[in-house]
Amino acid sequence: MTDGLNMSRRIRRTPYTSKVEQVGVRGFSVVNHMLLPKAFQTSVEEDYWHLRQHVQLWDVSCQRQVQIEGPDAAELVQWMTPRDISQAFVGDCLYIPIIDADAGLINDPVMLKFADDKFWLSIADSDVLLYAMGLALGRGMDVQICEPDVSPLGIQGPKSEALLASLFGEQIRDIGFFKFGWIEFQGTRQLIARSGFSRQGGFEIYLEGGHLGADLWDLIWDAGQAFNITPGCPNLIERIEGGLFSYGNEMTRQNNPLEIGLGKFCSLDGSVDYIGRKALEKIANAGVTRSIRGIIFDGDPCPTCSMPWPVMVGQQQVGQITSGIWSPRLKANAGQALIDREFWHIGQVVTVITSDGQHRQGKISQMPMA
Amino acid sequence: MTDGLNMSRRIRRTPYTSKVEQVGVRGFSVVNHMLLPKAFQTSVEEDYWHLRQHVQLWDVSCQRQVQIEGPDAAELVQWMTPRDISQAFVGDCLYIPIIDADAGLINDPVMLKFADDKFWLSIADSDVLLYAMGLALGRGMDVQICEPDVSPLGIQGPKSEALLASLFGEQIRDIGFFKFGWIEFQGTRQLIARSGFSRQGGFEIYLEGGHLGADLWDLIWDAGQAFNITPGCPNLIERIEGGLFSYGNEMTRQNNPLEIGLGKFCSLDGSVDYIGRKALEKIANAGVTRSIRGIIFDGDPCPTCSMPWPVMVGQQQVGQITSGIWSPRLKANAGQALIDREFWHIGQVVTVITSDGQHRQGKISQMPMA
Repeated sequence: MTDGLNMSRRIRRTPYTSKVEQVGVRGFSVVNHMLLPKAFQTSVEEDYWHLRQHVQLWDVSCQRQVQIEGPDAAELVQWMTPRDISQAFVGDCLYIPIIDADAGLINDPVMLKFADDKFWLSIADSDVLLYAMGLALGRGMDVQICEPDVSPLGIQGPKSEALLASLFGEQIRDIGFFKFGWIEFQGTRQLIARSGFSRQGGFEIYLEGGHLGADLWDLIWDAGQAFNITPGCPNLIERIEGGLFSYGNEMTRQNNPLEIGLGKFCSLDGSVDYIGRKALEKIANAGVTRSIRGIIFDGDPCPTCSMPWPVMVGQQQVGQITSGIWSPRLKANAGQALIDREFWHIGQVVTVITSDGQHRQGKISQMPMA
Repeated sequence: MTDGLNMSRRIRRTPYTSKVEQVGVRGFSVVNHMLLPKAFQTSVEEDYWHLRQHVQLWDVSCQRQVQIEGPDAAELVQWMTPRDISQAFVGDCLYIPIIDADAGLINDPVMLKFADDKFWLSIADSDVLLYAMGLALGRGMDVQICEPDVSPLGIQGPKSEALLASLFGEQIRDIGFFKFGWIEFQGTRQLIARSGFSRQGGFEIYLEGGHLGADLWDLIWDAGQAFNITPGCPNLIERIEGGLFSYGNEMTRQNNPLEIGLGKFCSLDGSVDYIGRKALEKIANAGVTRSIRGIIFDGDPCPTCSMPWPVMVGQQQVGQITSGIWSPRLKANAGQALIDREFWHIGQVVTVITSDGQHRQGKISQMPMA
C-alpha cells in the first residue's frame, strides 16, 4: 500500500509538518507540490470510526490558494468556470469546476469571495496559478495573481464545532455551511470556513502566516484532548461512501463536469460566458454517455486502486472504478466508478476486476452510500 | 530519509512502473503528478559509482511533454522563454527557461523542435500545459496544445552508447549532444535524444505509445546484462557535484534565471520579445545580488535537505543550501546554494547549519565540483 517517498525541498513541507511528525505520521501523499499526511499510527478503518464520532486535526495546507485581485478579477474567475459566480456574496464559498476549451476538467476549487475584486481559489492538485496567470497575460487583464502564505488546517468531525467554539467563541456556530467568518488568533484575524473534505461536519482555518502554524496546531491539539482529538486526513472510506470526488482520481481532463454529476454547478442557458461553454452545451444537448456511480462489491478487502479497474457486464467493459476500499460499515468493498449509460441504473449487477486479478461480483449503488 | 507514499490513481503510474517494481524499487518521488523511482536495492553511493562506470535504465516518464502545434506555435513558445529560439533547427533540443512577468522561473524544460510549427516542451515539475493553454486562450492563438502519450526512458552512463548501438544500430553514435534522431522499435519510429539528467553521458528514448513500455524496458534490460546494467534514477550525489539544478529545489518562482546561472540562455539585447523581458532586463542592468554556487562542507554525512539550510558567515546569513548530500568521492558533504554577492567568491569560508542542528564548516566551490 505504501512505498517510500523521497523527500526534497521540491516536495514542500507545511507549517504543520513538524507537528504531524511529532504525532507519528506514517505516510504522505503529494498534492500541489506539497506534503499531505495520509496515514498515522491507527488504521484507515480506526480513523474512519473516529472521524464519525469525534474530532480530527487535518493538515490540508496542500489546498493552496490562488489569489486573484484587481479590476478584472471577477471577469477572470467567471471566464474560468461554468458556474455563475455573479450571485455570490462576500463570505461565500462556492464550489467551482474549472474546465478547458473542450469542457475537460482542469480543477475543482472552492472559490472564496472577499470583495467584488478579490477572490481565493482553494485548489485541488493542478497548477491553477499558472493557468490563471496565462489567461490574464494572454488577454492583458488588470489583475494581480499570487499564491499567498495561507495554509488551511482542517478540524473535522461532529465535535469540531464545540471544540472551536471553546477556543474562538460561540459566534463560530453561526457560520453557515460553505460560508466563512473570522476568528482572532495571536493578534491576527484569520479566516474560518464551515467546509472540509468529509461528510462529518467541520471547519477549515485558512491560516495566513506560516510562522503561526505550530502555535495554532498546539492550541487546537491541547484543547482537543477533552474532545478525544486525533491527527487525521481525508479518509478514503468516508470519502467514497460519502460521494466526495477527488480531482486526479475520479476526474481528469478526460472528463466533463456533467458526467461527474456537477451539472448543478454549470450554467447552460447562455446567461454567462466561459471557456468551454460551446463544448459543454454540445455535451448537454447530446446527453452524457456515462456517469459517476457507486459500486458495492464483494470478496476480501480490495487492494489499493492506483490504476482504474475494469467494470464488466458479461464480456463487455461498461466502466471503470477509480477509487475503492473495504468499508467496515457496509461489510463490503465500496468504489466510485464511471459507468456507461446503459448500465448505470441503481442495482445493475456488474463484475469488478481488481488489480490483484480477482473477479468480484458487485452492484451499482447510489452515493452517498446508505 | 523516506516515509510512506500513499498510492492513488492521481499519482500516475508509468508504462515502466511494473518493471521497476519487478527489479525492486524501494522509493519514489512525485513529479508532474507521476511516479519517479528514486531508490532501488542499492545505496545512493553504490548507484553513484555504478552510474560513472556502467549503464543504468531510468524511468523518467514524469518528464511529460507539452506538445504545441499550429500556425502560432513558434510565436507562443518564443513568448514563453527568454531564450532566442529562432536559430533552432529541426532535431535540436534546447534548454529553455520559462519565466513569469516578474522574471520568476516557472519551469526549465528542454524544447524539441519537430518543425517550424511543432514543438515538445519536456518539462520539470509544474503544469506548463495549463500555463501554455492559458496564454493561448487568452491571446486567441491558433495552436493545439496537448500532453501526448510519450514516456521518456533514460539510458545513462558511459556504456549507454555501446548498448544502444548494439540494439538500434551504429547510427545512434552520430547523434550530437542535445540533438535527437530516430530509431525503429516494433514497427514504430521512436525519438531518441542524446540528453539526460546526468553528466555521465546518455540517451533518452521518448517512447510514444505507453503499451510498448514493458517491451522496450525488457529489450534494453536484457541486452544490458552484458553491460552490467542496473535500474537507476537521477543520482543526487552526481547531480550536485555535476552542477545540474532541479526545478523546485534550486529554483522556484522566487528566483530569476540570471542568479541561477542561466544568463547564457537569456536574450537581453531586445532582439526578441517574451513575457518578463522588462523585469529581466532590469535585473540584468542592476546586476544580480546573489548567485548559485557549490559548497563543500564537513562533518558526518548530512541529513536529507527538505528545507533550505542557512549558510552563515559569522552571525550573518549569506545564503541557503537547497540540496545537499555526502559525496564519497570528495569525502565531504556537497551542496548547492544561493549565495549573496559579497560572499560568493570561490574559497569563501562559511558555516552551514543543517536540519539536525549541527554547525558545519564549509567553503564555496565551483560547479561542477572537481
